[in-house]
Amino acid sequence: MDSVIMIMHERPELRAPILIEGLPGVGNVGKLAAEHLVEQVKAVKFADIYSKHFPPQVLLDDDGVIRLVNNELHYYRGEGDRPDIIIMTGDYQGMTPDGQYELSHHAIKVCKDLGVSRIYTLGGYGVGKIVERPRVLGAVTDISLCEEMTKHGVIFSKGEPGSGIVGASGLMLGFGKIEGIPAVCLMGETSGYFVDPKGAEAVLRVLMSLMHIELDLTALTDKAEQIDMIASKLKEAETPDVPKREDLGYIG
Amino acid sequence: MDSVIMIMHERPELRAPILIEGLPGVGNVGKLAAEHLVEQVKAVKFADIYSKHFPPQVLLDDDGVIRLVNNELHYYRGEGDRPDIIIMTGDYQGMTPDGQYELSHHAIKVCKDLGVSRIYTLGGYGVGKIVERPRVLGAVTDISLCEEMTKHGVIFSKGEPGSGIVGASGLMLGFGKIEGIPAVCLMGETSGYFVDPKGAEAVLRVLMSLMHIELDLTALTDKAEQIDMIASKLKEAETPDVPKREDLGYIG
Amino acid sequence: MDSVIMIMHERPELRAPILIEGLPGVGNVGKLAAEHLVEQVKAVKFADIYSKHFPPQVLLDDDGVIRLVNNELHYYRGEGDRPDIIIMTGDYQGMTPDGQYELSHHAIKVCKDLGVSRIYTLGGYGVGKIVERPRVLGAVTDISLCEEMTKHGVIFSKGEPGSGIVGASGLMLGFGKIEGIPAVCLMGETSGYFVDPKGAEAVLRVLMSLMHIELDLTALTDKAEQIDMIASKLKEAETPDVPKREDLGYIG
Amino acid sequence: MDSVIMIMHERPELRAPILIEGLPGVGNVGKLAAEHLVEQVKAVKFADIYSKHFPPQVLLDDDGVIRLVNNELHYYRGEGDRPDIIIMTGDYQGMTPDGQYELSHHAIKVCKDLGVSRIYTLGGYGVGKIVERPRVLGAVTDISLCEEMTKHGVIFSKGEPGSGIVGASGLMLGFGKIEGIPAVCLMGETSGYFVDPKGAEAVLRVLMSLMHIELDLTALTDKAEQIDMIASKLKEAETPDVPKREDLGYIG
Repeated sequence: MDSVIMIMHERPELRAPILIEGLPGVGNVGKLAAEHLVEQVKAVKFADIYSKHFPPQVLLDDDGVIRLVNNELHYYRGEGDRPDIIIMTGDYQGMTPDGQYELSHHAIKVCKDLGVSRIYTLGGYGVGKIVERPRVLGAVTDISLCEEMTKHGVIFSKGEPGSGIVGASGLMLGFGKIEGIPAVCLMGETSGYFVDPKGAEAVLRVLMSLMHIELDLTALTDKAEQIDMIASKLKEAETPDVPKREDLGYIG
Repeated sequence: MDSVIMIMHERPELRAPILIEGLPGVGNVGKLAAEHLVEQVKAVKFADIYSKHFPPQVLLDDDGVIRLVNNELHYYRGEGDRPDIIIMTGDYQGMTPDGQYELSHHAIKVCKDLGVSRIYTLGGYGVGKIVERPRVLGAVTDISLCEEMTKHGVIFSKGEPGSGIVGASGLMLGFGKIEGIPAVCLMGETSGYFVDPKGAEAVLRVLMSLMHIELDLTALTDKAEQIDMIASKLKEAETPDVPKREDLGYIG
Repeated sequence: MDSVIMIMHERPELRAPILIEGLPGVGNVGKLAAEHLVEQVKAVKFADIYSKHFPPQVLLDDDGVIRLVNNELHYYRGEGDRPDIIIMTGDYQGMTPDGQYELSHHAIKVCKDLGVSRIYTLGGYGVGKIVERPRVLGAVTDISLCEEMTKHGVIFSKGEPGSGIVGASGLMLGFGKIEGIPAVCLMGETSGYFVDPKGAEAVLRVLMSLMHIELDLTALTDKAEQIDMIASKLKEAETPDVPKREDLGYIG
Repeated sequence: MDSVIMIMHERPELRAPILIEGLPGVGNVGKLAAEHLVEQVKAVKFADIYSKHFPPQVLLDDDGVIRLVNNELHYYRGEGDRPDIIIMTGDYQGMTPDGQYELSHHAIKVCKDLGVSRIYTLGGYGVGKIVERPRVLGAVTDISLCEEMTKHGVIFSKGEPGSGIVGASGLMLGFGKIEGIPAVCLMGETSGYFVDPKGAEAVLRVLMSLMHIELDLTALTDKAEQIDMIASKLKEAETPDVPKREDLGYIG
């Protein structure tokens, strides 16, 4: 069995498309953003990616119909000054380091095959506390991209993230650089404690500016407000008499 | 060494056979059911499947004769309106996620090669408490199968199992769907605490109805009664003064 | 890199040789016995086996000269009624289940290539207490071997070992059976607490009888006495006031 | 995806070069020494080595430009009696045993391809206490190298290191020996508690003598002094009333 299996249902002819990757990760920022984008631009699924590096699992819909866990490719044909876009989202990232490499290596091969002209990988940047107005931090494959990104509100901050970028959002930049495809990682700040639609919103605002597209972000804003409410209730519950979560670390 | 090695002792010519898979899992429901079926229909073993994804172990019979741990294929030729059947059972499932993928991928390749027209995978659905009358839950590769299954007593319950299906019983549906082989997972409810012949019995009753076969389930019923007796004795022993197992969760 | 690399320094022409395997394991019984045999019959090393399934380690001799950890093949040409023998010993077994499979599968391929007519794998059978007169338990690939083995003092005891045989000594029987090479596992009883020359001695006595060879076992007997002495001193030290090792389990 | 990917930017023609390997390890001695050597001789990077056996990670520079974690090859053309040198350094060693094997096996293939005439692998030898004047211990592929090394201050000490050498510094000797490339491991003594420039300095002094090169070691000496200062402050802080780190081991 090949370590990655792609089934392409349709081979779209696209004009130097931009690939946007958003898979599960810190605060689920990347996945939330990418899925919201798919919905809003009504992108069309054209490929399923299966891999033995995903969990050995099928998921069920409400009728009891299964599907094998996967990653998916969707396309959107831009009009006017809007570019053609491929959106990669999915249930999981590779579960092991070498699985991560295999999957990202495969994704870049697909990019080359489809003539992808630029990659944006989306992720969360966990800062360990609630963030009121999340910044979007950037990382690039070439210094020439910094200036352009800065114009669209992306922040390049020396030493952030200090430990580099781990997983698909990092590796696709790494392999993109090797293969000569310009690539940018957009990281929305997030506490890292919750699924974070606010971080996803921040990332999408940058993408809207970069790609001249309009997206209705209401659904994300609503979800973000709900989570804010839950978070502040949890905070109230933490009276001075009750030890904070951190203090209980020794329990296990 | 190939990651899966199949040794076919005989190549049976079968008429669009149905494959039934029952390997070790929750409550051992699938394995119990599949092995009982092999015995009752006097199915003939025709293939051994070995894999480096199984434990590196040989088992001994009472005379000290060994055999390498394996999965096995058995066939049964139906008569009248009874279909030809292939039964897959064995000592283990793959021990790692990628092993699970390799083995299920191989099994589906074998299905295609032998002209399998439908797959039933058997498993247990752990509900965490003793079940008096286990239901049989279903999952399917195509919504058109739901109605047929419902007629034979299979229950489709939204959100059950919530985390999907993990292991061979799930993956064989996943790959079956990709390869165009209709497939159904039949999950007998079980506490998940014991080996559960009652869950196996429930699953077999559905299969009997589906395939127009008669099976003597006495052996399973007897085993189920014995286990019920042990379980109720264990329950009695739990006097009010003694904390229940769950309450001790924090210890270990 | 191939998962197993064999470097054959010489290709001995042997008459239907018997392969004897003794690698590290319970009580190190197999390795002790095989190494003692190599010394006593002055067997000649003819092949080194390296593998990425061994630890990534080199060992140093007293001069600081390294060698990559390995398994080794040695041959001995029998005279008269003594058979030609290949002895497989080494530093490690495969460290992972699939490594175990790869290495045993490779070993059996080598057996076929060299015309091996029978395999004896040597191991320890851990019984969890000091054994005065270790029995040698047997496991075979075919029931026809039981009678012959019993004549040479091998014991076949229903349900022992109950969990089958794990590792190279088991897998080489498993693959031997598949490939049609008769194979026997000889397991010397051992506490499993110490390296156990007494278990090795018991196994070698069976091999001496089976292969019409004479071995000086003094060195093993001496080592066994030393270890017996240490063991009985440890036992004395366990006065009633001092908790036994088992009782201290919660510390570490 | 190949398990190791090398991208050679330039193919230097070198005269029987010496390969020096220094990757992260005990006290980071090897990596510190190799990187200092690259800087001092102004070696030129000519190849990047990527692998799925490294962590799935990209690192960022101060501008936010990423690079995939790697190992690197640099060359230096010697003049007069100074040899041509290839220096191998990098971010990581392989993360798994089989990754270690794959990477070292690949490195030796590269050595053969580039006509490498000798290998020095650099590492730390952890002794578990602060070392005032670190010795440099040696290990070799052939006894004929011992005498030469001893002349340059390398110490061969029976039974040190007792457990052999683990990782790239060991495996490259192991594969070097198999492929007929003379190889030496130079291990600078180090506590193993800190990154240790003093151990790196000791190792470089041996290399300077061996290769007739002059290196300015001031930067390493300075760093070593800083670390000595921190270490002695930490020691002062350990007053008799405060339990030592070891005593707290049971906390976890």
